[in-house]
Amino acid sequence: MGYNITQKILASHLVSGSLEPGKEIAIRIDQTLTQDATGTMAYLQFEAMNVPRVKTELSVSYVDHNTLQTGFENADDHRFLQGMAAKYGVYFSRPGNGICHQVHLERFGVPGKTLLGSDSHTPTAGGLGMLAIGAGGLDVAVAMAGGPFYMAMPKVVNVRLHGRLAPWASAKDVVLEVLRRLTVKGGVGKVLEYGGEGVKSLTVPERATIANMGAETGATTSIFPSDEVTRAFLRAQGREEVWVELLADPDASYDEVLDIDLSSLEPLVACPHSPDNVKPVHEVGPVAVDQVVIGSCTNSSYLDLMRVAAILKGKVVHPRVSLVIAPGSRQVLTMLAQNGALADLVAAGARILECACGPCIGMGQAPPSGGVSVRTNNRNFKGRSGTADAQVYLVSPETAAATALTGYLTDPRELGDPLVVEMPEKFYIDDRMILPPAEDPTSVEVVRGPNIKPLPPAKPLPASIQGRVLIKVGDNITTDHIMPAGAKVLPLRSNIPAMAEYVFAGVDPSFARRAKEAGGGIIVGGENYGQGSSREHAALAPMYLGIKAVLAKSFARIHRDNLINFGILPLTFVEPADYERIEQDDVLEISNIPEALRGGLELEIKNISRNFTFKARAQMTPREVEILLVGGLLNYVSTQQRK
Amino acid sequence: MGYNITQKILASHLVSGSLEPGKEIAIRIDQTLTQDATGTMAYLQFEAMNVPRVKTELSVSYVDHNTLQTGFENADDHRFLQGMAAKYGVYFSRPGNGICHQVHLERFGVPGKTLLGSDSHTPTAGGLGMLAIGAGGLDVAVAMAGGPFYMAMPKVVNVRLHGRLAPWASAKDVVLEVLRRLTVKGGVGKVLEYGGEGVKSLTVPERATIANMGAETGATTSIFPSDEVTRAFLRAQGREEVWVELLADPDASYDEVLDIDLSSLEPLVACPHSPDNVKPVHEVGPVAVDQVVIGSCTNSSYLDLMRVAAILKGKVVHPRVSLVIAPGSRQVLTMLAQNGALADLVAAGARILECACGPCIGMGQAPPSGGVSVRTNNRNFKGRSGTADAQVYLVSPETAAATALTGYLTDPRELGDPLVVEMPEKFYIDDRMILPPAEDPTSVEVVRGPNIKPLPPAKPLPASIQGRVLIKVGDNITTDHIMPAGAKVLPLRSNIPAMAEYVFAGVDPSFARRAKEAGGGIIVGGENYGQGSSREHAALAPMYLGIKAVLAKSFARIHRDNLINFGILPLTFVEPADYERIEQDDVLEISNIPEALRGGLELEIKNISRNFTFKARAQMTPREVEILLVGGLLNYVSTQQRK
Repeated sequence: MGYNITQKILASHLVSGSLEPGKEIAIRIDQTLTQDATGTMAYLQFEAMNVPRVKTELSVSYVDHNTLQTGFENADDHRFLQGMAAKYGVYFSRPGNGICHQVHLERFGVPGKTLLGSDSHTPTAGGLGMLAIGAGGLDVAVAMAGGPFYMAMPKVVNVRLHGRLAPWASAKDVVLEVLRRLTVKGGVGKVLEYGGEGVKSLTVPERATIANMGAETGATTSIFPSDEVTRAFLRAQGREEVWVELLADPDASYDEVLDIDLSSLEPLVACPHSPDNVKPVHEVGPVAVDQVVIGSCTNSSYLDLMRVAAILKGKVVHPRVSLVIAPGSRQVLTMLAQNGALADLVAAGARILECACGPCIGMGQAPPSGGVSVRTNNRNFKGRSGTADAQVYLVSPETAAATALTGYLTDPRELGDPLVVEMPEKFYIDDRMILPPAEDPTSVEVVRGPNIKPLPPAKPLPASIQGRVLIKVGDNITTDHIMPAGAKVLPLRSNIPAMAEYVFAGVDPSFARRAKEAGGGIIVGGENYGQGSSREHAALAPMYLGIKAVLAKSFARIHRDNLINFGILPLTFVEPADYERIEQDDVLEISNIPEALRGGLELEIKNISRNFTFKARAQMTPREVEILLVGGLLNYVSTQQRK
Repeated sequence: MGYNITQKILASHLVSGSLEPGKEIAIRIDQTLTQDATGTMAYLQFEAMNVPRVKTELSVSYVDHNTLQTGFENADDHRFLQGMAAKYGVYFSRPGNGICHQVHLERFGVPGKTLLGSDSHTPTAGGLGMLAIGAGGLDVAVAMAGGPFYMAMPKVVNVRLHGRLAPWASAKDVVLEVLRRLTVKGGVGKVLEYGGEGVKSLTVPERATIANMGAETGATTSIFPSDEVTRAFLRAQGREEVWVELLADPDASYDEVLDIDLSSLEPLVACPHSPDNVKPVHEVGPVAVDQVVIGSCTNSSYLDLMRVAAILKGKVVHPRVSLVIAPGSRQVLTMLAQNGALADLVAAGARILECACGPCIGMGQAPPSGGVSVRTNNRNFKGRSGTADAQVYLVSPETAAATALTGYLTDPRELGDPLVVEMPEKFYIDDRMILPPAEDPTSVEVVRGPNIKPLPPAKPLPASIQGRVLIKVGDNITTDHIMPAGAKVLPLRSNIPAMAEYVFAGVDPSFARRAKEAGGGIIVGGENYGQGSSREHAALAPMYLGIKAVLAKSFARIHRDNLINFGILPLTFVEPADYERIEQDDVLEISNIPEALRGGLELEIKNISRNFTFKARAQMTPREVEILLVGGLLNYVSTQQRK
């Protein structure tokens, strides 16, 4: 029987295991990417492995998160990253060059290759036919050191696209429809592989939008075929030579199928406060809007912004609306500046921000108190915008532009005649803001600012844990809840002791203090614990505070992996009802941990405060068990190196 | 005998007093401007005066300082300002429309008129032949309410320009030369009135650069003639009808004369950490540079950025240098986007920031630790960049651009052939981002966010003060020292209790706590205390902390006025040597204050801790004495209104 695209790439990169869903596989990683918010830590970890030069085909270090630079910390990180890249054989995309996923798509992505990135939206490159997976920085560091990436073999869902998009419906609406159907946990343990005759009507940037926001379903990744559309895109990027055709075999099989009729899609919106709270724009009605934000790795391509410029040209934003636009890359910005579209945007009243993530990660442009913000971003978790009581709606660039003009959430079909925006024959190609690694690594001095602190060491997991439940949270807790980002906290990413003060700060500001007073403890969570961003700080900072175990109904993939990587035991309830029987401040005891983990992976937990016992499960591979027992992946790698 | 330009404008606006240097005069104010960092407080003060509509010819409210929006506070302020403007008859320049001084020059400035602005760089409009003065927000509020502006009649210095600038020397170098000669306190109590045949070789934006940074000498303002060059500028802005000729009479007299030979000026640089630490660029030598910032109200005009674009075109920034460019206005940015210059800047690796003050006021782009930043800004006070140990150099746009390319502080004459950049015949004119006031004020709802706190009330000055010296500081203490700005503190501008926690934070972080514990006290300063920014928060927040008097060797004008406006007694040592005899924590007693102030203005102060007495002087007009005694200008205005 034939292979689907996912299986083809996995098979050609398989280091160990077999392609049976749920079984552990290890794959060779061709390319890695990091961004600055996760990168500093990732390179500190890489450095700790004592490997003189990255062993991947290509590794790129991007700066796109911390570009406001409200203190010395960010510029220090940028300088450190630039030095590390030069020294260890990594390409360095300078601040202002753009958002990692947009630039990687433009300049580096290769169909059929594997990409591991320390950012949850790494699957964006799936738009080019790459198998692109988001992971914690430590996993990426291991990959740079030549190690394989381990994961449970995902199920492959065939998302079959039929027909073509109606005028004013867009790629964003396709992925919002996927989210509406799958929810934010419907993709866990799965790859969303797109197919069907509708694919060929979508350009690579549109495919990238869809692959990008597949991350919000919890999917391992999303992937599109590499076809003539892909070839044309690579040709326009001056990289046709890297193109290979990559299609599913005609007799390929899939674990699941999802059919989407493109022609029936209408403009959709994800309402506050979850990307899966999706409704048709016209059903939500004319919500009064204070801010419109166009940008982010989901929707900041040349095509996206040309459409926005065409809508705004000659008009002006509504007096109530602050419209901000952050182009995805220097390539995009230069082209808009060359062809006059940028002048149209500025004339229409848009505030142009640097080519970076910006408002999407709460780095600036926080809406007013209780404000309504309509954004082309991928996440609308409460508070992520920087304003705790803001209402954030996620839409397509077309809907955003229409809304900016009227001041109310607006179905872009009200604008009338459809837009005609063509893909360029040739993009503006200029890689001078991407610095190649130094030819002589010994010539490179890596400068470390005072905020760049050594990695805190992880201790081996004890044989038994007795600890207090420091917090009990509900379902769909995001890594933004666990380890907030935003303008105040993101600059501390390379300083775990300082960062740890903010763990759960938005949920319970006393958490860090209580954790330190108790000398650590246990976290109890609901379903899909740790969804959202890939940030390993959501494991690393709790580790620093002495958290030994997280007990939840279920976990998001990357966060579960991060917990193991940093030596925190991720456990799920055998009986979800037991969740109700535990309260904050209960003292739990978990005994005989090594035996249980190396045995049936079922552990008995005693609730000492309430005097009952219940069962929990550790869904881990034998390799993961050993990682956990030695105190995390970095310790494990050192052990392996010494063997 | 004939009048100079300053005298002509003052005479035509005189409400009381006579034009004798040092004597108090009151003048009618035609126009006012505010920006968002000082504006929220100014409009709260205006509101407290119960005047239904501003009484000026024109008042404009700009948003240019707090545009990063790292929390809800900024957007709340913007919304409040927009509402207040609509309600009270003020034009509102929306966020993204540009820096107040640049936009005012382009769209509103009128030769021969008076302008009072709650920003110390208000003199920029002197480039157009306006008498434009920076003041505290409360003074501006009084002017909006129709009150005159009081000041001591300044001396008028005739700055005579001879010859014309050599290639690669620029307007910035002219004002750096003025600073080199006058120092940061040499302009106190003076107006710098430019004349001489060299004036006609300078465009209005160049004159504006010179007038702008005259603020750094401590001058009341700087002013240029209104001539055919002015007329051409206004014509290009579509406003020729407001032009009037305004020249000094041939037989005008001046209090002082300063001659500058333009043709002998070479590229200059103000070295860390003062704008008057000026040397020729080539003498300072090739300092390695980490960052270049081009922008600020001093150097972000169309002409400035076209020159930068011409220098950078086809080249790329040095790998060590982060180059950021913040265009001065939406007019400038649109024109650069229309004519391709912006594409050249982006292609060369420039990071384009929003049209706003940005890095100049420490709102983002803080350099790395110990980093060297070369900027076209007007101030390089230690720490103002956001990085305490950064070294900031102030230069012309040409020097900045040359430096960005080489990575070392570079004399632009090394670039070779001179630039030819012409003033446009016609600027891009589009005022759609400037909202006129509402026709029906009752229709306007003013929304106040939770960070917008009522103004703290000021108490009448007691008859005697006994207080501890809470801090003793040296010469040239800036309002940045007293009340820091930057990304952390600026958003608190409308919340005095929160802001007061940061008074002297960079000098002595315990100050606010100690002041509160002691229930207030006294500050001792050296020469030129309170130079720099006009921020009245440097008086308002100390007032909130209970500061009753500041005893210094001398004061900067705006800060002294602000102290009086908020009921804090500004005293100078009769014998400067007495400064040495006082230490922090000494307890001082000042008795019979009303009698002394209404009498000879000399006060006896007892140092109780060291048991000696000394004399201090209160240089105040009778009106200022009354303002002080009732607890500040707002109380005084209420008293007057009740009469």
